[in-house]
Amino acid sequence: MTRAAERSSELDLSNLLRRARVAARALPRAPRSAALRAVADALEADAEVILAANAEDVAAERARGTAAPLVDRLALSPARLSGIAAAVRQVAALPDPLHRVLAGWRLENGLQVQKVTVPFGVIGMIYESRPNVTVDAAALALKAGSAAVLRGSANALRSNRALVAAVRRALAGAGLPEDAVQLIDSPDRALVTQLLAARGQVDLVIPRGGASLIGHVVETAKVPVLETGVGNCHVFVDASADLEMAERIVLNAKVQRPGVCNAAETLLVHEAVAKAFVPQTLAALAAAGVELRGCERTRALFPAARAASEIDWATEYLDLKLAVRVVASLEEALEHINRYGTGHSEAIVTRSRDAARRFEEEVDAAAVFVNASTRFTDGFEFGFGAEIGISTQKLHARGPMGLAEMVTYKYLLEGDGQVRT
Amino acid sequence: MTRAAERSSELDLSNLLRRARVAARALPRAPRSAALRAVADALEADAEVILAANAEDVAAERARGTAAPLVDRLALSPARLSGIAAAVRQVAALPDPLHRVLAGWRLENGLQVQKVTVPFGVIGMIYESRPNVTVDAAALALKAGSAAVLRGSANALRSNRALVAAVRRALAGAGLPEDAVQLIDSPDRALVTQLLAARGQVDLVIPRGGASLIGHVVETAKVPVLETGVGNCHVFVDASADLEMAERIVLNAKVQRPGVCNAAETLLVHEAVAKAFVPQTLAALAAAGVELRGCERTRALFPAARAASEIDWATEYLDLKLAVRVVASLEEALEHINRYGTGHSEAIVTRSRDAARRFEEEVDAAAVFVNASTRFTDGFEFGFGAEIGISTQKLHARGPMGLAEMVTYKYLLEGDGQVRT
Repeated sequence: MTRAAERSSELDLSNLLRRARVAARALPRAPRSAALRAVADALEADAEVILAANAEDVAAERARGTAAPLVDRLALSPARLSGIAAAVRQVAALPDPLHRVLAGWRLENGLQVQKVTVPFGVIGMIYESRPNVTVDAAALALKAGSAAVLRGSANALRSNRALVAAVRRALAGAGLPEDAVQLIDSPDRALVTQLLAARGQVDLVIPRGGASLIGHVVETAKVPVLETGVGNCHVFVDASADLEMAERIVLNAKVQRPGVCNAAETLLVHEAVAKAFVPQTLAALAAAGVELRGCERTRALFPAARAASEIDWATEYLDLKLAVRVVASLEEALEHINRYGTGHSEAIVTRSRDAARRFEEEVDAAAVFVNASTRFTDGFEFGFGAEIGISTQKLHARGPMGLAEMVTYKYLLEGDGQVRT
Repeated sequence: MTRAAERSSELDLSNLLRRARVAARALPRAPRSAALRAVADALEADAEVILAANAEDVAAERARGTAAPLVDRLALSPARLSGIAAAVRQVAALPDPLHRVLAGWRLENGLQVQKVTVPFGVIGMIYESRPNVTVDAAALALKAGSAAVLRGSANALRSNRALVAAVRRALAGAGLPEDAVQLIDSPDRALVTQLLAARGQVDLVIPRGGASLIGHVVETAKVPVLETGVGNCHVFVDASADLEMAERIVLNAKVQRPGVCNAAETLLVHEAVAKAFVPQTLAALAAAGVELRGCERTRALFPAARAASEIDWATEYLDLKLAVRVVASLEEALEHINRYGTGHSEAIVTRSRDAARRFEEEVDAAAVFVNASTRFTDGFEFGFGAEIGISTQKLHARGPMGLAEMVTYKYLLEGDGQVRT
């Protein structure tokens, strides 16, 4: 088949998904880790082609007048491509998440039960600009024994084509079905709707990107979805906090990497320590380039802060901005967090055992920190060795999702003629 | 508030869900098991009122000309009500699924990580006629620390009102918030749509009922859903099967209780044993009242079978009907099952270790049986002590769902000032 014919036939999504299903069947018994090492090699071997394709995407984006930081998210360099290949080798080196016996027991009638991890089958990934996600998602899906159906953004289409071509060639060379990784090679938005409605053909869809992308996927999907990423995270400085520690944690949670989901967006301060804590810490934050929005009591202590509105409490800035509120009690902090939080990561700084316990019990979030920065909610920091995203839903997985969260299980029951009476 | 005013205010679903959320917050630390014992007592104390309300539902249904078996599903009796109360006491006696440390470890920086079970929060249940589901679902949700929002069928509304009134009175008496169990007390279908769209207000919806109810919920929901129940289950009699065992298993899987999701709907027979197996076993099935639909090769061996069509392979009869097909190989059986199966329960009868292993690996279903009846896919048979349903999806839980599957988890991370570098 010519390349053009191949590309046009891929626009038949139903056919693409059928081929993904067939490919997926072979994966649990295939040499997936060896194939991933071949993928890493192929990415390096194809560097020239991949970087040239990416340069076209970047040039088109610049011509469109896109802001420099957004263009940067799209851009690959020899160093970034090496980093992508290295990440694939890391995934290859991780233990196999399949074929693990999670539990096993025998029924009184002699039936032996085993609960064993198995792949989802076909995993759809819908994501935005960064072309590294293309390879990352494909590698994790493959390691977890599932076929990956990838839908990147239109502005990265040339880069993604070049990356996926390298991946598929490597798979074929390693004896794996190349249809285990497929790109939805069209900017047509109707294909996303079709993917999200393909019950029985797609076992799971994982969106990765901003709040509007994720919201759209969750609202539209008729297939199972893992909601990831939106983090309106808080740090609460309790009445009994070690204020030096609190300042260190707040600065880290806000400033170390403001554009990520586990960065803090609102600081809550107990009124008992507001006077001692707010002026100094907000000055330090301002010195670090943070724009501050405060409640009235905050502004009385630090007049340089702008007035915070209802919108500020609800906003994930993903930027050097922080909302600050003085609260009268732990209860008020809990109420604020459970009202405005997105169930991602929440921290308390306290010396009180009781306050720590109440915060841990009553905050409804994937990760609850006592005396540590929210920035630790991360699959690598947790020691998972990989991360496909951070779940903010409660079904299936919560918090950082590594390979263990990218598989499902089946029950195997072995008997010698048992029937039910 | 008068009863009428209370009822009309309950039609404001958003308000109902807000009250459920508030009630849910108190549950993890509340005496849930004691409250459930009080619920069981209240159901017995209110027996007269409950049975009278149920009699009205039953009379209305009879007047509508509904078939007797369907009316029977709706009917309560003193014995059935005692059974419902006994089931609640059993749930009360089960171990608490909350506050369990699923895993724990320490990061190199000293941060102590714990993965601890916590409630979902608000669980919606959408189900059909049987009023026992009302109490069963409420009891399991409460035990799992979640508030239950119940939507039964319109023809059981009077029964459900009486049951929920008893449950709520018992909760209040035991010091639990009565809004932890609420009935959507209106037959208005728009409320179901609203419930399924209430992102952030409902953490999980579990539909229980027939394929069309479940399909509607899964297609419509914007909130997380656990798909349950549809079981187009197969028994495959392999070339090396012990044919006496095979006949016993097939008869059990089809006849012992044909109306349930783990009953067999299609029998697949390897051609090597078709002649020895089909005539005798189909005669035994026919003698047990089973209507048989066969492929051509089946009908050549057992002419009394009607011709099976494509529709038969895809149908969950839930009745004394069985489709029968002779296949040329294990591969053909696997292909048939993975094409027509619903991922519920699948069985092979074989003496071959290789055939058993291939079947276990390649059949994509929640429960895969070797030499046993499909009828064992059941939370009680598995030893879970309870069952809210049988999941046929791969996200979160697969197969029988007990209390362990009705909770989620959070990560607790305790440090002494750790920040990320």
